[in-house]
Amino acid sequence: MATIDIKKILNKDKRSVARAITHIESGYDGAVELLEELHKFTGKAYKVGVTGPPGAGKSTLTLQLIKWFKKEGKSVAVICVDPTSPFTGGALLGDRVRMTEVSNLDGVFIRSMATRGSLGGLSGKAVDASDILDAAGYDIIIYETVGVGQSELDIAKAADTTIVVLVPESGDTVQAMKAGLMEIADFFVVNKGDRPGAEQAVAAIKTMLQFREHDEHTWWPAVIKTSAHENKGVDEVAREILRHKEHLETTGKLAVRRKEREKNRLEGIVEGAILSELWASGGAELLHGSISEVMGKQISPFRLAEKIVNSYREFLKEKNF
Amino acid sequence: MATIDIKKILNKDKRSVARAITHIESGYDGAVELLEELHKFTGKAYKVGVTGPPGAGKSTLTLQLIKWFKKEGKSVAVICVDPTSPFTGGALLGDRVRMTEVSNLDGVFIRSMATRGSLGGLSGKAVDASDILDAAGYDIIIYETVGVGQSELDIAKAADTTIVVLVPESGDTVQAMKAGLMEIADFFVVNKGDRPGAEQAVAAIKTMLQFREHDEHTWWPAVIKTSAHENKGVDEVAREILRHKEHLETTGKLAVRRKEREKNRLEGIVEGAILSELWASGGAELLHGSISEVMGKQISPFRLAEKIVNSYREFLKEKNF
Repeated sequence: MATIDIKKILNKDKRSVARAITHIESGYDGAVELLEELHKFTGKAYKVGVTGPPGAGKSTLTLQLIKWFKKEGKSVAVICVDPTSPFTGGALLGDRVRMTEVSNLDGVFIRSMATRGSLGGLSGKAVDASDILDAAGYDIIIYETVGVGQSELDIAKAADTTIVVLVPESGDTVQAMKAGLMEIADFFVVNKGDRPGAEQAVAAIKTMLQFREHDEHTWWPAVIKTSAHENKGVDEVAREILRHKEHLETTGKLAVRRKEREKNRLEGIVEGAILSELWASGGAELLHGSISEVMGKQISPFRLAEKIVNSYREFLKEKNF
Repeated sequence: MATIDIKKILNKDKRSVARAITHIESGYDGAVELLEELHKFTGKAYKVGVTGPPGAGKSTLTLQLIKWFKKEGKSVAVICVDPTSPFTGGALLGDRVRMTEVSNLDGVFIRSMATRGSLGGLSGKAVDASDILDAAGYDIIIYETVGVGQSELDIAKAADTTIVVLVPESGDTVQAMKAGLMEIADFFVVNKGDRPGAEQAVAAIKTMLQFREHDEHTWWPAVIKTSAHENKGVDEVAREILRHKEHLETTGKLAVRRKEREKNRLEGIVEGAILSELWASGGAELLHGSISEVMGKQISPFRLAEKIVNSYREFLKEKNF
């Protein structure tokens, strides 16, 4: 813990914040204690998720939102969850360069986290990182996720307001539905709204929203057309975030959402701890040593599972936990 | 167990097979014992996964493959993993009607399983169902998954040969990459191959495959153009399945893959058992009762997690497991 200065984090010192995130991202010793100490300073930041299929212009929109909130005197931190498929290599270089320029501004912090090799674990780490940014006093934290996988959905669910960004191209909205994005959207942005088909895309989304379960008290997701690279419609998007924030606050839904999220996070921590112990305490060896018998039909997978569960209980008994 | 007749299952009696699948799908008493008894009769079926984005024509291709294998004298069972998003309602009615017609043929069994509300658990149930079909003596088992979510990926991974079906439309291949489909494909089908852009889509996939890690011993995924509704290219697809099967068998990779899969399945069974016990034995109550303290910053999530882990150990000790 010698290298992490809590006071500097609380003073929004960028270098200390960056170092702390690296610390928890790498799972170094003392990571839990660090989060533990910072926990009482969290809960003030407002979290916005920006998600949608690749190429929809999420980075550009995020950049414009940073500038908008900066003008309002707010500090903004962004966690970009990057795809690191060997086929693509993540966001376009131009976006990255512009991101770097903006990240040098005072009161702006931008950080990328990679999904590769950390499926499942990433959403947890992104939430931990946002705790550090929250404690540091950033007013707005934006999660920008690229892709439509489960870990992107998990991260989007960790936001107070989730924006789903689509483009007019046919098939995009269908993809979004199938991937579960429709259900998590607090509102929609149809970016590249100057392209042909934009009006139809807006209409299609509005039609699909009719089928979502709702009553008269339901928040009705808006569908906003933007051209983020020309800064068109960005003002409307930012105001919709604030309108949704107010809705959550006045209805008491914000507290309910955050409690639900903290519950999910706790489940993840508990299950992670138990399962690591289970496999490390001999479960993995037993599985590895007996799998050939399962393949040879000498033992069924269910019997072997029972043996592994029992060996874990035996381990706990011996350790006298 | 009174209603399930093992002998009838082993004799490929469709009604008994269907009832057994319902039994394990619903998690009725005796489901594990049933799978246990059938386990020694499994391991003979060859499993094919057909996956890809919605609207790619997977159902049509699957129907044609059933007919192809029937002609070769093989029996075929299909497990369709249906999307049950409130927005869509699953496959087109026409496909379903044609599926029903085919399912009345001798030696053909078709079953739908719903993803709704069973995220994570579904892939396990689909694998259990395929054990019943395997024991019943079906030569080929096809998993047809609709969508690109994590549970669809898990199911695709449970196959010996995985086919990724795409359509020429722009964006489709990019979506597939992002969703992780590129990595799991043993070969590709570009369906609706008579549409404009089909040749470009084939070329794009081949280009992307160059970036996949490989050496001279690597299986090189083919890219096959089809028009499944006109039965064009289906023969080539079926032969590619058999060519891949032979490749896996002669290189010894089939045994390795199946062993790996059985390991993953075992991990799922063990973790499911431990975690259900953890939450049922007081963990859920403790979490529910203390989450407000976490929200109020009286206790950190990490401390509460520790308390829950300890209470589970206490439970095991008292039960004297």
